[in-house]
Amino acid sequence: MVKKVGIIMGSDSDLPVVRKSADTLNELGIPFEMHVYSAHRTPEQAGEFAKNAKKNGFGVLIAAAGMAAHLAGAIAANTTLPVIGIPLKSTNLEGVDALLSTVQMPSGIPVATVAINGAVNAALLSAQILALSDDELAEKLVAKRIADAEKVLLKDQAVSAEFNK
Amino acid sequence: MVKKVGIIMGSDSDLPVVRKSADTLNELGIPFEMHVYSAHRTPEQAGEFAKNAKKNGFGVLIAAAGMAAHLAGAIAANTTLPVIGIPLKSTNLEGVDALLSTVQMPSGIPVATVAINGAVNAALLSAQILALSDDELAEKLVAKRIADAEKVLLKDQAVSAEFNK
Amino acid sequence: MVKKVGIIMGSDSDLPVVRKSADTLNELGIPFEMHVYSAHRTPEQAGEFAKNAKKNGFGVLIAAAGMAAHLAGAIAANTTLPVIGIPLKSTNLEGVDALLSTVQMPSGIPVATVAINGAVNAALLSAQILALSDDELAEKLVAKRIADAEKVLLKDQAVSAEFNK
Amino acid sequence: MVKKVGIIMGSDSDLPVVRKSADTLNELGIPFEMHVYSAHRTPEQAGEFAKNAKKNGFGVLIAAAGMAAHLAGAIAANTTLPVIGIPLKSTNLEGVDALLSTVQMPSGIPVATVAINGAVNAALLSAQILALSDDELAEKLVAKRIADAEKVLLKDQAVSAEFNK
Amino acid sequence: MVKKVGIIMGSDSDLPVVRKSADTLNELGIPFEMHVYSAHRTPEQAGEFAKNAKKNGFGVLIAAAGMAAHLAGAIAANTTLPVIGIPLKSTNLEGVDALLSTVQMPSGIPVATVAINGAVNAALLSAQILALSDDELAEKLVAKRIADAEKVLLKDQAVSAEFNK
Amino acid sequence: MVKKVGIIMGSDSDLPVVRKSADTLNELGIPFEMHVYSAHRTPEQAGEFAKNAKKNGFGVLIAAAGMAAHLAGAIAANTTLPVIGIPLKSTNLEGVDALLSTVQMPSGIPVATVAINGAVNAALLSAQILALSDDELAEKLVAKRIADAEKVLLKDQAVSAEFNK
Amino acid sequence: MVKKVGIIMGSDSDLPVVRKSADTLNELGIPFEMHVYSAHRTPEQAGEFAKNAKKNGFGVLIAAAGMAAHLAGAIAANTTLPVIGIPLKSTNLEGVDALLSTVQMPSGIPVATVAINGAVNAALLSAQILALSDDELAEKLVAKRIADAEKVLLKDQAVSAEFNK
Amino acid sequence: MVKKVGIIMGSDSDLPVVRKSADTLNELGIPFEMHVYSAHRTPEQAGEFAKNAKKNGFGVLIAAAGMAAHLAGAIAANTTLPVIGIPLKSTNLEGVDALLSTVQMPSGIPVATVAINGAVNAALLSAQILALSDDELAEKLVAKRIADAEKVLLKDQAVSAEFNK
Repeated sequence: MVKKVGIIMGSDSDLPVVRKSADTLNELGIPFEMHVYSAHRTPEQAGEFAKNAKKNGFGVLIAAAGMAAHLAGAIAANTTLPVIGIPLKSTNLEGVDALLSTVQMPSGIPVATVAINGAVNAALLSAQILALSDDELAEKLVAKRIADAEKVLLKDQAVSAEFNK
Repeated sequence: MVKKVGIIMGSDSDLPVVRKSADTLNELGIPFEMHVYSAHRTPEQAGEFAKNAKKNGFGVLIAAAGMAAHLAGAIAANTTLPVIGIPLKSTNLEGVDALLSTVQMPSGIPVATVAINGAVNAALLSAQILALSDDELAEKLVAKRIADAEKVLLKDQAVSAEFNK
Repeated sequence: MVKKVGIIMGSDSDLPVVRKSADTLNELGIPFEMHVYSAHRTPEQAGEFAKNAKKNGFGVLIAAAGMAAHLAGAIAANTTLPVIGIPLKSTNLEGVDALLSTVQMPSGIPVATVAINGAVNAALLSAQILALSDDELAEKLVAKRIADAEKVLLKDQAVSAEFNK
Repeated sequence: MVKKVGIIMGSDSDLPVVRKSADTLNELGIPFEMHVYSAHRTPEQAGEFAKNAKKNGFGVLIAAAGMAAHLAGAIAANTTLPVIGIPLKSTNLEGVDALLSTVQMPSGIPVATVAINGAVNAALLSAQILALSDDELAEKLVAKRIADAEKVLLKDQAVSAEFNK
Repeated sequence: MVKKVGIIMGSDSDLPVVRKSADTLNELGIPFEMHVYSAHRTPEQAGEFAKNAKKNGFGVLIAAAGMAAHLAGAIAANTTLPVIGIPLKSTNLEGVDALLSTVQMPSGIPVATVAINGAVNAALLSAQILALSDDELAEKLVAKRIADAEKVLLKDQAVSAEFNK
Repeated sequence: MVKKVGIIMGSDSDLPVVRKSADTLNELGIPFEMHVYSAHRTPEQAGEFAKNAKKNGFGVLIAAAGMAAHLAGAIAANTTLPVIGIPLKSTNLEGVDALLSTVQMPSGIPVATVAINGAVNAALLSAQILALSDDELAEKLVAKRIADAEKVLLKDQAVSAEFNK
Repeated sequence: MVKKVGIIMGSDSDLPVVRKSADTLNELGIPFEMHVYSAHRTPEQAGEFAKNAKKNGFGVLIAAAGMAAHLAGAIAANTTLPVIGIPLKSTNLEGVDALLSTVQMPSGIPVATVAINGAVNAALLSAQILALSDDELAEKLVAKRIADAEKVLLKDQAVSAEFNK
Repeated sequence: MVKKVGIIMGSDSDLPVVRKSADTLNELGIPFEMHVYSAHRTPEQAGEFAKNAKKNGFGVLIAAAGMAAHLAGAIAANTTLPVIGIPLKSTNLEGVDALLSTVQMPSGIPVATVAINGAVNAALLSAQILALSDDELAEKLVAKRIADAEKVLLKDQAVSAEFNK
């Protein structure tokens, strides 16, 4: 059975960024669920979701939060599934607070951290993980890399056409 | 009945710093309990401690942790008692990670953050809170302030004696 | 007699942020006074306010300031009441200057620091402190936590309805 | 067939930190290979290793580097296997340079970044990824979590015995 | 034969900044080529360009990238021509990530780093390098310095006229 | 004879900030001259101005610059008059580059640094220095302090009227 | 009558750094007084010292403090004499907290900030200020500059002798 | 005639780092001169050296300085030769002050900045620049790259021998 990706965000105000994770998973045909659970306002629901994630068919969890971004760590503390953290930029501090709160996890409880607001890469990373036992998905990822490279080369042609004469 | 202070640290390696909170509370005659609970390795025990803290006679909780320091936030998420966070300096980043992870709490769940490694001030802040309904303790705090000021003035005399002729 | 919260800001240009402290206290039915005193332009008035705060019926003081934010420390130096500091973001430096100037207090004079522009949490923290000797307020805070959690869960339902099919 | 973990470090001077990844994998019985390839001094070998990693039986790659830490990104650019980056602290800048160079990857090429010098967590994260299709390993990880928690609780007992009377 | 400057940017979204390098080279009459190659999406093309740059008539290479800006380092790893890195400011972190990822190169593979978004100076630096064996260009650079200085002095006259009476 | 203040900015684009220094000096009746000299584009004119400043009747020099803000240091290196540095915020880095480039002067050549974009305070500081031998100016400064304090107290009344009932 | 320099430090533990201010003033024959007053533990004495400084014969005040370094600002708030701030490096944060707390003063109350631990330059800056009305001191400062330059040139000769053959 | 490299350091205390530039140039057989000139204590000598560098046979200048590191910029302001800046780490701030003071040069006057304390790379970069018109040197640089790569591969063999069985 195909494993799902679980996406949890700390607040629905995070949706404009986190939606890109959903879009990327849709593009790759990976099933997912999206939830709003706050590590601080609904710690029990966040914890329960993580504890039951494996038996509920999830293979990877993505957690997105800003400021003192504890969500990914709180999820990771309650599961041994791989947990990917997206540090979100808030009004202040350029996202440094969320980055450090997400990545600087103590030994024993890793969080796979991507760039600030890196929602696309969080989805791709979850896909790369799931692709280890899904050859069709692995091929899609290779194809996407080739397509991405071709886009760069097309842009190179356009820039070359303008500048290199 | 006198309320206790609960001190929780994320690892017993934090004891050299956190011990100063205990020393300060002892000096002021404030009862306390000290515990090691990790927000990530023992999230349930940390949560249970916080949930039961009020009915177990605690008035203020102090939580000390380093790196992606979620402990104070995780405690605060499970109680409406005032929670004081001590960000601890670890091997890297000069304590900035712990400071931001502790202080940048989202609306709804405050953590009263003191300076990096500020264990003495965490104890004093808990004392100032408890003193609101404990006149004897309030007087001790006033007396300590006077004593601290006198120490500064004695040092001023020593420096004056050496330099100001 | 119910203790009041004293809110001091360094400049009336801070009002858009600090007003949220007032709103939160009003919502909780906690009496407060709001003042504009600058640690640097009116150091005597700031000091006098702090020195007399206890006998004037205040239980907790909140001080909000930006840049080299000395206000909370200057207030704390003149009272043994608990003092909560709100570091304010100014035009430059993303609020880091105010955060460090507020939180990095030396041993002896604690300031309970909340997040940059964390005016709501400053009010909640003062409420949590006053609730130690006010059971009705304590119940309000518990009720607010439950209400806040329910709001998150409602948002989860909305997001689930859109994405999880 | 069991998939291996590939560990690549940019310089053999990184071995004191990276060795902890090897120790953790050994402890969990996960096969691995360890290599020294520099993104800058041996870019071709680093690239070749990454390109052939999947067909050579690797499931996850760990890349550790300091300063302008390009190694994890250079590896990730040449494979669709999940790549874990360990930013290493060098003589200057407290590891911030390596952290940002590792985590701030552009869309399309994710690197699962762990804490500065987080070699143990890099190994655990690779184990959590491989455990998705290895139930025995998954059980080991759960057992390790329980053991880690018990260590914390034993430390709590020791601290309680000293302080809580 | 006159050596060309090669300008490589990681994405065509960098063109608004990088175009200033082209403008400056045009102004000085220095031949150049401009390309879009990503260190992560098209690592082979980026590497090939660098490896062949010398024999293709390039004398200096300029590489511009944002975030975990590996491009300049990846180019430098594949050529012994002087490589100039322009760290680009992205949406977050004020360009600090790109600056550190570009400048903190390990011993053996230097990147001549200019200011964040310093596209004009990257072009001038390449001109100063090429001018070592091109007296006409050297004279143009001296003339440009004199012209720049005169512009400053004209502005001084305007300011003096307004303020100094 | 009354000594003048010399204000030097590195570029006329700095005028919107630096004009506030002029306004403040005008308000206090202090004679000044304003100039545009770049430490890098017109190093000789900047140096000459500094070298001759004392004999040309200047008592204090103010230098304002952004980015790698060498101007104040370059001025200070060429005079023993007190030199005040205003670090200017540029497009990137929030003014941190200018602050550190201005304040971190090596032993022997001090620059009296004010806040980022602190043009008013630079003028006030120059006034405080000149007032040491100008009693009338000293009185103006005391009067300004009193007026500033009264403005704060008026704002306190307005805020009190709105909130404290 | 010659004006004195007043040196105030927040704690006698700052003496190893601040002593260099005294040494430099002694070297220049400038009278000074040195005091220990804490902005937080002895705010009244600090304020009184500043308020009376002018009538007590001081011309410039130097204030040195670490962490949330309010001392210079608290002194400056109580006098219109020029106040020089020395941010001191403490155990954590490399002195950034003290630097920002000292330099980022709001409009109206300037502090002339020198480098972190810049005690020599604080003394030199005070000398440069006092020299405006003390020609003998002005000559000493010019002579010291020349002597400092000669030391550099002697070192250049030594280095040249070793390396340039 | 072969062009020389000029190495200038701001203080002879920088020699332990800067000596590595000399060692690297010696290894490559590139003639150089080494000098101690301070941008602030001997601005004229620094400026004169730069102004005459071209006619005195220099092709590239390397400038190393710490703190508010103006040296490279001051050199660059006085020559159109390529100038390489080495930001030096001082006692505080981990070298960030020197890095920003060196790299954030305004448009018109580039400084080719290498890593903090990157003295080897400064020498290599100067060699790469001079090699544009010196085929023998160019070959040496290619040979050094190959030798460096071989060292990495030998280390890989040693690590492989220990870990990969």
